[in-house]
Amino acid sequence: MVPTVEWKDGAVRLLDQSRLPSQVEFLDCRDYRAVAEAIRELKVRGAPAIGVTAAMGVALGAQSVDVEEYPAFAKQVEAMCDHLAASRPTAVNLFWAIARMKQKLAGLTAQPIAQIKAELIRESQTILDEDIALCRAMGKQGAAMIHDGQTVLTHCNAGALATAGYGTALGVIREAWEQGKKIRVIADETRPVLQGARLTAWELMQDKIPVTLITDNMAGSLMRQGKIQVCVVGADRIAANGDVANKIGTYSVAVLARAHGIPFYVAAPYSTIDLATKTGAEIPIEERNPLEVTSIHGSHPVAPAGVAVYNPAFDVTPAELITGIITERGVFKPGELAGVFGTEQAANKSGGSS
Amino acid sequence: MVPTVEWKDGAVRLLDQSRLPSQVEFLDCRDYRAVAEAIRELKVRGAPAIGVTAAMGVALGAQSVDVEEYPAFAKQVEAMCDHLAASRPTAVNLFWAIARMKQKLAGLTAQPIAQIKAELIRESQTILDEDIALCRAMGKQGAAMIHDGQTVLTHCNAGALATAGYGTALGVIREAWEQGKKIRVIADETRPVLQGARLTAWELMQDKIPVTLITDNMAGSLMRQGKIQVCVVGADRIAANGDVANKIGTYSVAVLARAHGIPFYVAAPYSTIDLATKTGAEIPIEERNPLEVTSIHGSHPVAPAGVAVYNPAFDVTPAELITGIITERGVFKPGELAGVFGTEQAANKSGGSS
Repeated sequence: MVPTVEWKDGAVRLLDQSRLPSQVEFLDCRDYRAVAEAIRELKVRGAPAIGVTAAMGVALGAQSVDVEEYPAFAKQVEAMCDHLAASRPTAVNLFWAIARMKQKLAGLTAQPIAQIKAELIRESQTILDEDIALCRAMGKQGAAMIHDGQTVLTHCNAGALATAGYGTALGVIREAWEQGKKIRVIADETRPVLQGARLTAWELMQDKIPVTLITDNMAGSLMRQGKIQVCVVGADRIAANGDVANKIGTYSVAVLARAHGIPFYVAAPYSTIDLATKTGAEIPIEERNPLEVTSIHGSHPVAPAGVAVYNPAFDVTPAELITGIITERGVFKPGELAGVFGTEQAANKSGGSS
Repeated sequence: MVPTVEWKDGAVRLLDQSRLPSQVEFLDCRDYRAVAEAIRELKVRGAPAIGVTAAMGVALGAQSVDVEEYPAFAKQVEAMCDHLAASRPTAVNLFWAIARMKQKLAGLTAQPIAQIKAELIRESQTILDEDIALCRAMGKQGAAMIHDGQTVLTHCNAGALATAGYGTALGVIREAWEQGKKIRVIADETRPVLQGARLTAWELMQDKIPVTLITDNMAGSLMRQGKIQVCVVGADRIAANGDVANKIGTYSVAVLARAHGIPFYVAAPYSTIDLATKTGAEIPIEERNPLEVTSIHGSHPVAPAGVAVYNPAFDVTPAELITGIITERGVFKPGELAGVFGTEQAANKSGGSS
């Protein structure tokens, strides 16, 4: 796979996902504002990927601060952090990664500015490296949930493209495939932005994992026909009670899975778990431009001009519909997360969005 | 509303629905093969509308038969009927309308050919006029299912454009609106062909009935938020046990409605009820070109080239998920249809597809 995001020649290089699969193009961000814009415009998307990207955005911004006194330096970097944090509201990994960079910065008061700048680049690279390792670990934990011969439904893209590499839900699928299980994937196209059609199908085809593309409204019918045995999706934020915010349409898949007795798993690393958010009702749900619904790729209209549109980018799946949450530490019931991750998040205040 | 289909200057004039809403264009079919092609290509769609159109196609074809002996004339017209019947497999109204035209032809053995030709045009016009009257009657029967202040979800287009005029599901909505009820409509965009975005939103905007467009995968989330109080959809075929074939995605809406305690109604005239089909499992489900899924309007790609696709045009909603079936004679439980319509369909063998 080509890298989703990397530090390259003093710039943050992003694979421009808004152009996939027809064009494989890279975007070199040389300014933290360009990084925030790329996140807002979905050139990079997926909760873990935007976390890594934002961390690199902070590091990038820090390089441009031309003062030698720590307080003034820190003040400017923190303003850049705020700017980056305002790019999207739902995925908690964004806030988590920025908080981690701020924490790093706060621990470097005694260092020369040049060294702080280098440390911030290193920290963002560490976040990136950890993300790939977490995905690999999640894959190993979750692969047992997918049995030989099964067909897995996934929604949106929780793949290598949604992370620094390998993927969360698709990491689990990749690991099951690499273990030699003969599995097949059904990819929901995932309107309005079509991450399933454009990204998930593309990723899986590159890895030669059998994938069939459907429109979102076909999943129920396939379940009724017995053609889907398990669902695995990613997450943008998981509340303390195990409620999961993820791409719009995830909730419908979970209700349909329950109605057909099909297990429904969510794969996510610890940075997606936000114990400071008690339930899904507290998760802010981003509403995006109606043009995403009324057109394809913003340019090809599919609805009458001026029609009213509702365009929430995410929905909340309540804990009771979730069979298990696949993390790097194991597969847990939604209600077990607070116990498993509570100590860590209490020790490290950067774990929450607040 | 502009007419969906009409007999105009010796041709079958269709509103080209594949170009809506960006272009309002008409297609004059001067040959029955062009009529069959227009049905196959979805230039006209919707179970009742394709029934009316096929009847007009039979009448149109008959005008071109240049023989004066009844047996030779009838043989050629029947071959045209077979050609038109092969255009699409799921909607039973197509077969019903063609069977009715054949029955008319069979009753005219003693007439001069010129008179038979005129009678066939008249019969197709009668079918068209009846269709509008049926929609109006369905509207009156069904409007009581929608209460003042409610928001109604509909899927696909079961509107004036799916019929000769007024609509089945949208006929019910129109009648409720005309009765002064303050209602709102949520229209599923209905991928892959986007009949909800292109046609339902357009129709309702023309009538100034408040409509909000969503992608198909948003319906569940809206239901969970209490923003939908009732669902009304159309049907392409209703089996004797009350199972309903309708546009792909209808089944998912029905499952979601049940999970949220929301009533789910199907609106359809007697010609959609096919007592010769015992259950939904016997209804043939058309699979269409993968290009409908991998592109928008056949030209704008949204998925990687060569991806495997599943593209069923319809699904089956089992009777147990249906609150009521709204017909021109009243609103019935799915299990009551055979009793209500059995005598009529037994008396009129043209009522079935077999």
